Amino acid sequence: MARVLYELCGIDEGLLFSPYCWRVRYALAHKGLEAETRPWYFTDKQALAFADHDKVPVLVDGDSTVTDSYEILRYLDRAYPGTPLLGEGMAESRARFFKHYAERALQPAMMRTIIMDLLNAIHPKDRDYFRETREKRFGRTLEEFHSPAKGLAQLDAALAPLRGQLQDSDFLDGAVPAAADYLVFGSFMWARIVSSADLVSNADPVYGWLERMLELHDGLGQKAMRVTDIEGAYR
Amino acid sequence: MARVLYELCGIDEGLLFSPYCWRVRYALAHKGLEAETRPWYFTDKQALAFADHDKVPVLVDGDSTVTDSYEILRYLDRAYPGTPLLGEGMAESRARFFKHYAERALQPAMMRTIIMDLLNAIHPKDRDYFRETREKRFGRTLEEFHSPAKGLAQLDAALAPLRGQLQDSDFLDGAVPAAADYLVFGSFMWARIVSSADLVSNADPVYGWLERMLELHDGLGQKAMRVTDIEGAYR
Repeated sequence: MARVLYELCGIDEGLLFSPYCWRVRYALAHKGLEAETRPWYFTDKQALAFADHDKVPVLVDGDSTVTDSYEILRYLDRAYPGTPLLGEGMAESRARFFKHYAERALQPAMMRTIIMDLLNAIHPKDRDYFRETREKRFGRTLEEFHSPAKGLAQLDAALAPLRGQLQDSDFLDGAVPAAADYLVFGSFMWARIVSSADLVSNADPVYGWLERMLELHDGLGQKAMRVTDIEGAYR
Repeated sequence: MARVLYELCGIDEGLLFSPYCWRVRYALAHKGLEAETRPWYFTDKQALAFADHDKVPVLVDGDSTVTDSYEILRYLDRAYPGTPLLGEGMAESRARFFKHYAERALQPAMMRTIIMDLLNAIHPKDRDYFRETREKRFGRTLEEFHSPAKGLAQLDAALAPLRGQLQDSDFLDGAVPAAADYLVFGSFMWARIVSSADLVSNADPVYGWLERMLELHDGLGQKAMRVTDIEGAYR
């Protein structure tokens, strides 16, 4: 049975932009595993009923169905113990902090910067759902929430610990990348796929790391379709 | 030969407020090790010449002299391998991120909030040195830099990933504390010793963790002398 990963796609079936799915894509590549993409849209809740879940990524691997990006990384470490992603004990607990750092410090800052680009990259059939759920979450319209100036200033502050780490080593996990790198880099892939905004200046130590991450695993990130690759799609 | 830790002290020899020294105090307790305090002041550069260094903590342990709080934690893991602090490989790399997070995200925010309290807690002979070096670093006077409103807002934002982590587990390192906890908690001890400012509300998941950290190792943090314990010292 083929390994299948349900992934969020946008205006093109090849435009895969979920930060959580990118974590899993990198984690699979880290383990040397292939998985077929099953395109999914925000409003396709029914398509995930079999997994008793309403969000992607969902990984179907033989008899195992696993939801949630972090749980999928844990599953991959159990099922394929070579070249650990999260590791165990203190290593695993500490990896979890990178998940929270990406979701609570980096993504909110990026979101304020790229939200209108994100709306534009989402499939037309998903846009009402996206607008409604996010406006409820933010307590204001997407247009009011959108503020690249504030978002970039917030991101600049949030990146400070990452800069320190990347002045010490090439990857967050040391000389070679592992889960900490993938958990954080997923957020940058999300922004990269839907927007041409420059989030990090090329003088920043984070910039060199982003370049290294794009090159990894045969240029996995570098090769990914961006909205700017689709003629007439980027406004 | 007794183990000796050079520690920064303030208006009282027992007022030990360096965040970096607190990391080491907790790390020593974690290993079940004692160390005699050798009081040190900012302007006592000569007293550390033997270690070829100009800042505390400096640990003298038998024939070993070790400087820098993170290096001291590494040394302790090598010399006393039981109950690891940093661990090795990915665990160690990930621990380093907590050091940068404390120094680059939390401390700058705390500094804006407590700097005048800090100046007040420093020994009078150190105050000119402190003012001169910090004003040069901040590019303005201490009074101009001081802004509890901005500092607390900045701290609130910086604490977001910590909140996520502490909703998952009692300590940053999981069910029991280790280096990640000590690296971050040192910053809170710094603020606690010199100031009565409420940095974290009691509804915050971080608050419960601070309480647990204060209780650890026989109430090591709880028992520490605060400036508010010295009659007439807190203004």
